[in-house]
Amino acid sequence: MSNSHPAIVGLDVGGANLKAWHAGGQALAIPFALWKSPQELSSQIAAMLQQLPAADRVVVTMTGELADCFATRAEGVEFIVRAVEQAVRSVLPDSIIQFWQTHGKFVAPNDAVASPLLTAASNWQALASMVGLLFPQDDLLLLDIGSTTTDLIPILQGQASAEGRTDLERLAAGELVYTGVRRTVVCHMLPSFQGELGRYGHVSIPLSSELFATSLDVYLLLGLIEEEPENCETADGRPATKEFAEARLARQICSDQSELTTHDVIKLAMAAAAAQQQQIVQATRRVINCASRPIKKIVLSGSGEFLGRQVAVQACFPMEEILSLKDYWTTAGSEVACARALVELALQGF
Amino acid sequence: MSNSHPAIVGLDVGGANLKAWHAGGQALAIPFALWKSPQELSSQIAAMLQQLPAADRVVVTMTGELADCFATRAEGVEFIVRAVEQAVRSVLPDSIIQFWQTHGKFVAPNDAVASPLLTAASNWQALASMVGLLFPQDDLLLLDIGSTTTDLIPILQGQASAEGRTDLERLAAGELVYTGVRRTVVCHMLPSFQGELGRYGHVSIPLSSELFATSLDVYLLLGLIEEEPENCETADGRPATKEFAEARLARQICSDQSELTTHDVIKLAMAAAAAQQQQIVQATRRVINCASRPIKKIVLSGSGEFLGRQVAVQACFPMEEILSLKDYWTTAGSEVACARALVELALQGF
Repeated sequence: MSNSHPAIVGLDVGGANLKAWHAGGQALAIPFALWKSPQELSSQIAAMLQQLPAADRVVVTMTGELADCFATRAEGVEFIVRAVEQAVRSVLPDSIIQFWQTHGKFVAPNDAVASPLLTAASNWQALASMVGLLFPQDDLLLLDIGSTTTDLIPILQGQASAEGRTDLERLAAGELVYTGVRRTVVCHMLPSFQGELGRYGHVSIPLSSELFATSLDVYLLLGLIEEEPENCETADGRPATKEFAEARLARQICSDQSELTTHDVIKLAMAAAAAQQQQIVQATRRVINCASRPIKKIVLSGSGEFLGRQVAVQACFPMEEILSLKDYWTTAGSEVACARALVELALQGF
Repeated sequence: MSNSHPAIVGLDVGGANLKAWHAGGQALAIPFALWKSPQELSSQIAAMLQQLPAADRVVVTMTGELADCFATRAEGVEFIVRAVEQAVRSVLPDSIIQFWQTHGKFVAPNDAVASPLLTAASNWQALASMVGLLFPQDDLLLLDIGSTTTDLIPILQGQASAEGRTDLERLAAGELVYTGVRRTVVCHMLPSFQGELGRYGHVSIPLSSELFATSLDVYLLLGLIEEEPENCETADGRPATKEFAEARLARQICSDQSELTTHDVIKLAMAAAAAQQQQIVQATRRVINCASRPIKKIVLSGSGEFLGRQVAVQACFPMEEILSLKDYWTTAGSEVACARALVELALQGF
């Protein structure tokens, strides 16, 4: 390798998205529903590696092992490790492959398989470790909001100081909030809508327990996520536009435009967004209260940063202490933050 | 037709199940995910008709028009009407076809399409009308719990006396509760688990917002629904057995048997079942309180009758006033109750 930059690729294998970062500054992110077609994982990763410059080291983190195509997380970890190995060997045969574990180290593929609970759901820990290196003197909260989940990680004087380590422990500690800006089912954001609804007056309507609409529809309709007419990764497979988002949200209360106006549906979207924001604000307060040092600084990352900023303001962080990983890593780097963090950790000698 | 029984078939076209009843006493029910393969609806219905004796009248009700393969409910109604016509014409070319509407009448196919909101979600009304004919003097509540939804319909002196007519109005009135014993996502039954969990002590864990497990898993694990090793209509496509139900439920809190014992997962199932029961009890109290006459009798139907009975007891109905449609219509007739009701209504001259 004679390139001017170190030849390292970071890979983040999620259950719904694959993300990559090359040390030369290239980001890649593709939606990939692992639970639907696990047999395609290796070829998808290979295709991503082919779009990036060559590398002699590939460092990997994952959350996809929870996908329900795997009977256990151990099975999921082994499957993902082997799929990555196959992809890397086909595209970069001489490259070293290493997996991040939640105790803060890279290990070889066989070691990653041998201790699956340390390899599982490790991406938050890589990101937190890296942010600790960026702010070695500070006591801060890292708030990363993605398509599906939200991570809240206290980082005290440069050290990730989470209470939980596994997903279960992190859910219980409020450090993992299973809500995000694209894939969260609207009936889970908002079990019941209460308010004025056009010709019906004041109503209290429990949302139908179906996957009719997701948080993507809420933020499309509110104009906080831009329309993507080519993207059909939606609840009904129709385009990610305002028009279709409105139909999907109306269906979530068993209705359509024959009974509800656009204004009615926007109210529903606002209520869902407010409920999601409140859920993250509560988790934020809890994590701050449990930390062993006072936290006044918050660092935002992920594709849901627009929501993170609202949460930070509502949780009373001073404006000058609300920072964004984008300002350090550019927007592309922030949206593949965990993959990028791995590369930085590798560069720092981990 | 020279058969000894009237040659009438009732069809109930749901979004997740197709049900049929022939006046001769034959019931058929097949799971069919309409939203996944709408183009197969007509051939599925034709296959059901071929398994039944001949008929010269086919009477139909539906809820499947809400499936998200249809842009609007009007589009869904038209699609279902035409699919039924095609199926009936291919198997029973001389048969009359009629659709039930929520104002309590059968209409011809073109009329069903012309007023879609009367044709949509009409199956509860057919069942209620029929139960009214069975108990013409009584004031009662009909509680029908199915795989996906629960209907609560006051029937006063033989007349269905619901407040709502469309699904939206019925949700708002508590007459439609979007919860059932097979398809309800567990995170919607139980947003958060609170209690003792093995080695973790007392915990409060929000469930992950994913379709990892459904109410079927809850009742499989609790022994209230029998194992069906051949049935893979589950959240992860694995068999409907206790073993796999346990894995699915554990995944709903991001875990597996490496962290949770069977006893832990049973506690989670018990909490979900209790929450679902409570939700239906509350709706029951509300519907009774809003009725214009005192209601002391309850009639149970649907595949979730075991849950309906618990609800009836908890809502303080006297034991002798808790009746079951099974005792009048046999178990098979009760599980396809709406299809059977249509046939009875047709026989009564509707």
